[in-house]
Amino acid sequence: MALSVKLIRLGAASLVAGTLFSGAALAEPARIPEQALPVARQLQQKALAGSGAFQIVESLSTEVGPRMFGTPGDAAAVAWAVAKLKELGFDKVWTEPVAYPGWVRGTERATVTAPFPQPLHVTALGYTLPTPPGGVEAEIVRFASYEDMLDAAPDSLAGKIVFIAQPMVRHIEGLGYGHAVAMRGDGPIEAAKRGAAALLIRSVGTDHHRFPHTGVTEHDEGVPRIPAAALSVPDAEQLERLLARGKPVTVKLELTPEFPGPTQSFNVIGEVRGREAPEEVVVLGAHLDSWDLGTGAVDDGAGVAIVTAAAKLIRDLPQRPRRTVRVVLFAAEEIGLVGAKAYAEAHKGEMARHVIGVEADFGAGPVYAFNSTANPAADEALKVIRRALSPLNVVPGGEKASGGPDVGILRRAGMPVVDLELDGTDYFDVHHTADDTLDKVDPKKIDQATAAFATFAYLAAESTGSFGPIEIPPAKQ
Amino acid sequence: MALSVKLIRLGAASLVAGTLFSGAALAEPARIPEQALPVARQLQQKALAGSGAFQIVESLSTEVGPRMFGTPGDAAAVAWAVAKLKELGFDKVWTEPVAYPGWVRGTERATVTAPFPQPLHVTALGYTLPTPPGGVEAEIVRFASYEDMLDAAPDSLAGKIVFIAQPMVRHIEGLGYGHAVAMRGDGPIEAAKRGAAALLIRSVGTDHHRFPHTGVTEHDEGVPRIPAAALSVPDAEQLERLLARGKPVTVKLELTPEFPGPTQSFNVIGEVRGREAPEEVVVLGAHLDSWDLGTGAVDDGAGVAIVTAAAKLIRDLPQRPRRTVRVVLFAAEEIGLVGAKAYAEAHKGEMARHVIGVEADFGAGPVYAFNSTANPAADEALKVIRRALSPLNVVPGGEKASGGPDVGILRRAGMPVVDLELDGTDYFDVHHTADDTLDKVDPKKIDQATAAFATFAYLAAESTGSFGPIEIPPAKQ
Repeated sequence: MALSVKLIRLGAASLVAGTLFSGAALAEPARIPEQALPVARQLQQKALAGSGAFQIVESLSTEVGPRMFGTPGDAAAVAWAVAKLKELGFDKVWTEPVAYPGWVRGTERATVTAPFPQPLHVTALGYTLPTPPGGVEAEIVRFASYEDMLDAAPDSLAGKIVFIAQPMVRHIEGLGYGHAVAMRGDGPIEAAKRGAAALLIRSVGTDHHRFPHTGVTEHDEGVPRIPAAALSVPDAEQLERLLARGKPVTVKLELTPEFPGPTQSFNVIGEVRGREAPEEVVVLGAHLDSWDLGTGAVDDGAGVAIVTAAAKLIRDLPQRPRRTVRVVLFAAEEIGLVGAKAYAEAHKGEMARHVIGVEADFGAGPVYAFNSTANPAADEALKVIRRALSPLNVVPGGEKASGGPDVGILRRAGMPVVDLELDGTDYFDVHHTADDTLDKVDPKKIDQATAAFATFAYLAAESTGSFGPIEIPPAKQ
Repeated sequence: MALSVKLIRLGAASLVAGTLFSGAALAEPARIPEQALPVARQLQQKALAGSGAFQIVESLSTEVGPRMFGTPGDAAAVAWAVAKLKELGFDKVWTEPVAYPGWVRGTERATVTAPFPQPLHVTALGYTLPTPPGGVEAEIVRFASYEDMLDAAPDSLAGKIVFIAQPMVRHIEGLGYGHAVAMRGDGPIEAAKRGAAALLIRSVGTDHHRFPHTGVTEHDEGVPRIPAAALSVPDAEQLERLLARGKPVTVKLELTPEFPGPTQSFNVIGEVRGREAPEEVVVLGAHLDSWDLGTGAVDDGAGVAIVTAAAKLIRDLPQRPRRTVRVVLFAAEEIGLVGAKAYAEAHKGEMARHVIGVEADFGAGPVYAFNSTANPAADEALKVIRRALSPLNVVPGGEKASGGPDVGILRRAGMPVVDLELDGTDYFDVHHTADDTLDKVDPKKIDQATAAFATFAYLAAESTGSFGPIEIPPAKQ
């Protein structure tokens, strides 16, 4: 898509600070000097020989483990991150507060009470309500898909436990997630509108193990809230088989989560300061929090490790890059991108100096494609990056980078972004489960991913000029 | 090995009833008539086109699910089995009582309390004691192997929680199981002798998922009993990493199993009666009970399905085979082969008419080898069976058949046995875990296994003469 066409579609308010507010250097389209390429190649070779990323995710997932927002593990993770970035020799390390209401998982239990009594493995969706004392026991009404449930008439599900049996497609880019996750986010609201007493969903996951996948769910003022939980895939299939017998199936669901009220955590930020333009930053994002069930090795310990190790490799070069490489370890991503929103708010006056960003939040690698959302005028600089990534077996993608969940928030604030696409084929096997543990991280793959992130970060930090302005995505409906 | 050599090694008491007490027909070495081969081939083709085994394991694992000895699920399994065998048209179906003390799992929880607090996934070993009220909290002492722990001096582990980190080899025959399982069976006794307060073992399993593997453990009069549990493999590795930091690691373990006292279940037996010699039986064994954690689809729902479907295929032939095919669904295998011992006791007067037996208790197939423990004089009959199995891609094995856990008890009582070796490469990924569910059973593989069992059972039931006498294995030390 040509720039002119893009700009015609932009409202004036969307034209970003990049070209309007900053110095002359930022008014030019981005360029990367030729002499940066051999250095990028050295970084890659060093990373592939042992990037240090595995040691970082090993440390975080072992010495901290589960670190859900607001829990003691989360506080331990913040302390760990500050200490780790300092230990690795980052030039500047600091924290920024992030506030949000807390939620703490309790007991979670589901039992088929008729016709064939047996336990089911479930987990409460994040921020769901507890069941009433003694639990909810009711007949199951099954829908093959979320859309099928939306077709049900208001009050038609009165007093029932709704079960949505929608499966999830396995796909390298996670194509199936966006399709399946709607039932997790909005399912409880829509089921409640139709009178349901509780909601059970088939886990939004691609494995066939007995791990239910948690994840945050929404609520809506004006709609009564109902408890909601996910069944593991084998348990969802078991419930389908039980229902296929044609007799009414009743389930008892017990959830006892608690809402401890206002809660705080911190974004942890570390910089390798630029030698010429230290106030101009290349953002490497990942999130420090995890769900409570696993040790968060894959989601997102791997991302923390990739961006931290990439920056550390750059820090260890004979000289600092021209611009600053800023690692932002976001708080409270899992519960609603809360840390990214806090960062965007805290730094809104400096968005023009956020030159470009990337995020690692899709597992432990490898990286297989490079996409960008930048101004077409910056394409010469992006070409240099594409060329440098090619020996890592990274294919040039298109102009469709999202920035990822957290860095995508900064894209909405006008920051150009790239995606170093991580292979997500197996990602949703362990995502948001107890099975997200270190043994799922392959040291060789995470080294390759770190090599790709270091390559991009270094070349972007050696650049001059701007990768923007970019088209701001339309606000979510 | 020649017969003469074998017989020289036999004590007179070991010479089995086969040739001594039964009719003239049983005094001759076994023979299988040529005309049985085309019928065996038809059975195979029918089995491969859809043996019915998958439907049987689907039914058992769905309509009953977990069925640990003495639980309501176990009673439901007995009722299910009686109804299923009758529904399938077996000529005779009955039950025989099996008594043993009960054990019921309670809460099971382990937490690292220092230096990096976090939960660990554990499960109590079967028949272990509860921890004292409030749990046991103590420092961990790690041993790389069970043998290393045996080297520790008496009382040297006073007050500690012993952790045995021994891994298990993946192997088609389950080679790693025998090696690793000693720490589960005798570990609590040996740890207690050395003063330990509790025992944690790395699960006897080959997966890397967060499922601890249960299994029965022993005790010894005169040695104090201590609580014992298994860590999932990822949790065992996490504990290793925590210990590798060099600081003392403390864990709190809470287990609340109960001992409900004398408990009863039933072996369920069904026969396809022989047309000429109905009192001479070919035994097809599997066990009906399962551990409580999963739905027992693989262990041993698959075995129940294979032997039941194989007998049903034979039952559906235009005429009954010469001898009886007897399916024995043993009770209480998991907790110590209790049902098989009860069967051997109840039928000890008829052992001479137990012509030969086989067991399915190593997953859902395929079958890849055929071994026998029979008298070399019967080799001509075995050759016919080997030849008939060959198109199923079953390789002739050696003279080393064990009979399997339950049917092995009958071998000790003098019954010749064969092993239709099931591919156990992945078996210990789910064995004794919550993840033992129907999705782990491949319909095509279980059809092949059923074809092999039907082939053997039919040809053995068409045989005349004896597969014995056999050498009785020496008693266990």
